[in-house]
Amino acid sequence: VSVDLAIAVDLGGTQIRVALIDRTGAILRKISDFTRATAGPDIVIGQIAALVADVSGGVARSELAGAGVSSPGPLDTEAGVALTLPTLVGFENYPLRAMLSNAIGLEVKLENDGIAAAIGEWRFGAGQGFANVVYVTVSTGIGGGVIINNNVLRGRRGMAGHVGHMSFVQGGEMCSCGNCGCFEAYAAGPALARRWVKSGGSGDAAAVFDAARGGNGVAIRLVREEAEFLGQGFASLMHLYSPDVLVMGGGVGQQFDVLHADIMGSIRICAMPAFRDTPVVRAGLGDDSGLMGIAALVFARDRAQH
Amino acid sequence: VSVDLAIAVDLGGTQIRVALIDRTGAILRKISDFTRATAGPDIVIGQIAALVADVSGGVARSELAGAGVSSPGPLDTEAGVALTLPTLVGFENYPLRAMLSNAIGLEVKLENDGIAAAIGEWRFGAGQGFANVVYVTVSTGIGGGVIINNNVLRGRRGMAGHVGHMSFVQGGEMCSCGNCGCFEAYAAGPALARRWVKSGGSGDAAAVFDAARGGNGVAIRLVREEAEFLGQGFASLMHLYSPDVLVMGGGVGQQFDVLHADIMGSIRICAMPAFRDTPVVRAGLGDDSGLMGIAALVFARDRAQH
Repeated sequence: VSVDLAIAVDLGGTQIRVALIDRTGAILRKISDFTRATAGPDIVIGQIAALVADVSGGVARSELAGAGVSSPGPLDTEAGVALTLPTLVGFENYPLRAMLSNAIGLEVKLENDGIAAAIGEWRFGAGQGFANVVYVTVSTGIGGGVIINNNVLRGRRGMAGHVGHMSFVQGGEMCSCGNCGCFEAYAAGPALARRWVKSGGSGDAAAVFDAARGGNGVAIRLVREEAEFLGQGFASLMHLYSPDVLVMGGGVGQQFDVLHADIMGSIRICAMPAFRDTPVVRAGLGDDSGLMGIAALVFARDRAQH
Repeated sequence: VSVDLAIAVDLGGTQIRVALIDRTGAILRKISDFTRATAGPDIVIGQIAALVADVSGGVARSELAGAGVSSPGPLDTEAGVALTLPTLVGFENYPLRAMLSNAIGLEVKLENDGIAAAIGEWRFGAGQGFANVVYVTVSTGIGGGVIINNNVLRGRRGMAGHVGHMSFVQGGEMCSCGNCGCFEAYAAGPALARRWVKSGGSGDAAAVFDAARGGNGVAIRLVREEAEFLGQGFASLMHLYSPDVLVMGGGVGQQFDVLHADIMGSIRICAMPAFRDTPVVRAGLGDDSGLMGIAALVFARDRAQH
């Protein structure tokens, strides 16, 4: 009997999502809980263990290939350690992989959430069939992951692919990472919402898109500017990684239809001619790209396969 | 008898350099000629062929593992085609690999100059022994190449690693690539010289460093600013690739001793904490990194090895 099921955990600052996934990427069960983000690691590990027990109820241990967890970072995925989890209290230099493995009695793989989602889109989503994929998630932050020549780009301590943290504007807006002027500080959802509020609007990034779809001239202009920032950042990523395809996900990525033409217009200006025909496509798996990527990792016989 | 020698060609807009190199990276012979940059491909290929004949005089064909050429790009190294060579006339979509192979009667490998130099530093220079290396050459432009997990990062058409062409300043100075505000447009030698001339100085980037070493206050300030730009760009590259080491070469790289402290100071501000201990070191091979990288490529049994 081959081991045909993986347990995938998506640990976030708001929610913990746990799924039971088969080799084809099909999600057989999926449950979630609100993260007790300020309660400390013991409580959070307990929450995950309870969700894992729940989602794997009735499944024979022999059917399970293992478990994996995606988490915001930076993580040291070589050592299995969370260096800092900005949205969760008490996880500084926390041995997340070992503690979770102890709690659930399974081998656990650990991956940065952006890289996990990139693997999901590459194996099962919009990046399927390509050897070189850059995945960018644009929501409250900008994260992502990179596949080059059918290898996951990990680098030292598995920390590569922080695509939101390129210097983008000299002495610009503060970024969540502590630096000024990162791509994220200009093109993530909160940056768009900030420009909207400054122009007299109210609400979050989704409100700007709603207003633009409703014909509001200021919102239309801000959405176009957002697309130009995104195109500029994507052009840089093309120069740096030379992907076959750039896949855009996240909450802002859900507005792909109104952004796409202006993103491509910006790329035609910013990218060197040889890169301008690189397609930019919408993510195919929505919120599940990370869970499905973690499952792909669990099924990979070893880390080197990816 | 094993084939123990490689012919390495470094095709530049000013000079063509050709060397005979053994498996240890030792350069046995090296000759050069000024590039007839406006004479067209036939003449330039003839120049290379004459240099190759000269450098390999008296060497038995059975001793030659092959030849390789590094060239400015973008090149499509999968197809063996120069897409454009900005400093050479008539090389648009030119099948450089095939034409050179015909002319010299040897199998030829083709590599972007930045990637070739990165391979040289990784195999024989300052990046030796590391699995993850980012090489950045700072001179009249900014180029480079990336090794991740002991694989050369090539991406689609072998065009990855254009590290000088990240958007760096919104609506900033024109860059040689056609975009505005690239890292290269702010931190390459000519940008430093431009700021120097604007401040009343005269001469090129080397003159600014000379003046700073002589105690000129304006030059000292400009060199510090140059280091800050470099540190900011290097921090972005750390976030994107997570190297074990970042190796700096090129003409501006020769001023490493006066730049290093302020580069590291800038990285401590700009890089996320987990990346701040990444060492930045001076290239070890000077002008020969590209030639030695090409030799390493020729000796690699196949492309996949790199």
